[in-house]
Amino acid sequence: MLPELPVEPVLEVVGVFVAAMSGALAAVRKQFDLFGLLVLAWATGLGGGVLRDLLIGAVPPVGISDVRLMGAALAGGLVMYFGHPRLERARRVIVVLDAGALALFAVVGTVKGLEHGTTALAAIVVGVLTGVGGGILRDLLTGEVPVVLHHRQLYAVPALLGSAATVALWHLGLAGAVGLSAVAVGVFALRVLALRFDLNAPGPWRAPGASRQR
Amino acid sequence: MLPELPVEPVLEVVGVFVAAMSGALAAVRKQFDLFGLLVLAWATGLGGGVLRDLLIGAVPPVGISDVRLMGAALAGGLVMYFGHPRLERARRVIVVLDAGALALFAVVGTVKGLEHGTTALAAIVVGVLTGVGGGILRDLLTGEVPVVLHHRQLYAVPALLGSAATVALWHLGLAGAVGLSAVAVGVFALRVLALRFDLNAPGPWRAPGASRQR
Amino acid sequence: MLPELPVEPVLEVVGVFVAAMSGALAAVRKQFDLFGLLVLAWATGLGGGVLRDLLIGAVPPVGISDVRLMGAALAGGLVMYFGHPRLERARRVIVVLDAGALALFAVVGTVKGLEHGTTALAAIVVGVLTGVGGGILRDLLTGEVPVVLHHRQLYAVPALLGSAATVALWHLGLAGAVGLSAVAVGVFALRVLALRFDLNAPGPWRAPGASRQR
Repeated sequence: MLPELPVEPVLEVVGVFVAAMSGALAAVRKQFDLFGLLVLAWATGLGGGVLRDLLIGAVPPVGISDVRLMGAALAGGLVMYFGHPRLERARRVIVVLDAGALALFAVVGTVKGLEHGTTALAAIVVGVLTGVGGGILRDLLTGEVPVVLHHRQLYAVPALLGSAATVALWHLGLAGAVGLSAVAVGVFALRVLALRFDLNAPGPWRAPGASRQR
Repeated sequence: MLPELPVEPVLEVVGVFVAAMSGALAAVRKQFDLFGLLVLAWATGLGGGVLRDLLIGAVPPVGISDVRLMGAALAGGLVMYFGHPRLERARRVIVVLDAGALALFAVVGTVKGLEHGTTALAAIVVGVLTGVGGGILRDLLTGEVPVVLHHRQLYAVPALLGSAATVALWHLGLAGAVGLSAVAVGVFALRVLALRFDLNAPGPWRAPGASRQR
Repeated sequence: MLPELPVEPVLEVVGVFVAAMSGALAAVRKQFDLFGLLVLAWATGLGGGVLRDLLIGAVPPVGISDVRLMGAALAGGLVMYFGHPRLERARRVIVVLDAGALALFAVVGTVKGLEHGTTALAAIVVGVLTGVGGGILRDLLTGEVPVVLHHRQLYAVPALLGSAATVALWHLGLAGAVGLSAVAVGVFALRVLALRFDLNAPGPWRAPGASRQR
C-alpha cells in the first residue's frame, strides 16, 4: 500500500500507538488489570484491521502476526499504564493524533481490500471498519454501547467519504502516493474541523415539533 | 441455492429489508445517530450471513460485497428512520415478515454451508446462525443481553428444526425447490403458531417446588 | 497435535465439557432458556477455539464441525441444566478442572497455530485466545465485562507463559509429547498455585499514595 511513500509505515505505527493509548485509557477508567489493559490497547489499536483481514480472508491478520504493529499497540498501552494521569491532560493532542489515525486507517484499509480483489462496496465497508472497528471493540469489551454509533460527531462520516474517494481514485488509476495522501489529509482535515466547530452527523429520529436536546 | 426458484432472491431481499427495519427500530429507541442506525440495520439484516460466511470461509461475505443485499439493508434502515413512529404501529406485520425472514435465512444458510462442503453438523450451526445471528449482533451493539437466549419463545427452535430438515433432504437428494420450500414454509408456520398460541421453549432451570414465574 | 499422546483427545473433550459447564452456570444465573443455555455452553467450551480457527484460516472451525467436541459442549450444558444446584456445591472441583482446560487449550491452540504456519507471535496470541476466548464470549453474551480483563487473578498469565514456552519448544524441535505435557503441567500448576495462595497479576493503575482496595 502506498509503496512510493516511505513515510506510511511510520504513520501506521503512530496510528496504532495512539489508538492503543485510547483503549488503555478506557481500561484505566474501568479498573482493568494490566493484562486487561494490554488486551484493550491491542483491540483498540489493531482490532479494526483484524476484522478487516478476517472479512477479506487475509489470515492470519497482521494485527496478531506483525511484530512492529503489535509492539506499537503494547507500547501505547504501557505508556498509558505508567503515564496516566499525566497523559489525560494531553487529551487534546491525543484527539488530534486519533484523527490522523482514523484518516490513515480508512485509506490503508480500503486499499488493502481492493488489493484483495473485493468489490468497490466491500472495500468501502472494510475501509470504514478499519477506522472505527477498534473503538467499537474497545467499547464492547468495557461494557459500553459503542460511542461511534450514537455520539453524533462527524467521525465515521469522514472515514466513509475517504474510503469512497479512495475507491474512486483506484478505479481511475490515480491511487498513487499523491492521490492517497490527499485523501488522507482531507479526512484528517474534515475530522479536525468537525471537532473545532462542533459539526454533527444527522442525529436520532425526532418527533416533529419535539424540542431538540443535545 | 434453490436455483429453480426465481422467487428466492426476491424473498432474500425482503428478508434482509425486514430484519434491517428491526435493527433500525432498536437504534431509534437507543437514540443512535443516523450512522449508528444504518450500522444496526446492516448488522441485523446481514450480520447472521456475515458470521456464516466467515465460518465457512466464503470471504468476502456477501453481506459486505453484494450491492443488492446491502441496498436492502440500508433501505430498511432509512425507511424506519423516516417512517418511525408510524411503522411501530405496524408491529404485527413486521413480526410476521420476520418469521418469514427467519425461515428463509435458516434454509438458505444451511444450503450455503453444505455447498461449501461443511459437515452436516456445521451446516446446521451456520443455518441457525444465519437466522438468529443478526438479532444477536443487534442486541450486543445496543448493550442488551441477546433476547433470543432468554426470551423462551420458539424462535431458534424452528430455525434449528428447519436446518436439520434441510440437511436431511440434502443427503437424501431431495433438496430441490419443492423440498426446500416445504421446509421454509414449515419453519414459518411453526414460528407463527408459536406467536399465535404463545408456545414456549424449555425455560431456565427451576428449583423443584419453586413457584413458576413468567 | 501431540500425536504420540493418545490421552490428549480425551483431555480435550474433558476440557470442553468443563468449560461448557461454566458457561451453562452463567446461563442458569441469568435465567436463560434452554436454547440460550446451550449456546452459552457451546460459546464457553468451544468459542476460544472458533476464534483461533477464524484467525488462522482453519475453516470451518472444529468448534462447529467436530461431533465429538460439540457433543462434549452440549453434554456439559445439559449436565449443568439438570444437575444445578447440586453442581454448584462442587465448585472447587470445577475450578481445578478449569485450570486443566486452560493449560490444555493454551498448548493445543499454540501448536495448531504453528502447524498452520503462523509467526511465533501469532501462535502465542491464538494460544492464549484458545484458553481465555471462551470465557470472554460467555461474559459478553451475558452482558458482563469480561472477568479475565479485570479480576487480577493469574489466569491469562499462565496461559501466556505456556504459549510462549510451547513456541520455544517448537523452534527447538522439542515439541513432542513429553515437552508439551511438561508445559501443560506447568501452566496447570501455576494456575492452581495462584488459586491456592491468592497470587495476583499487576492490577489497575493507581495514584501514588492512594489507599489500596481489593
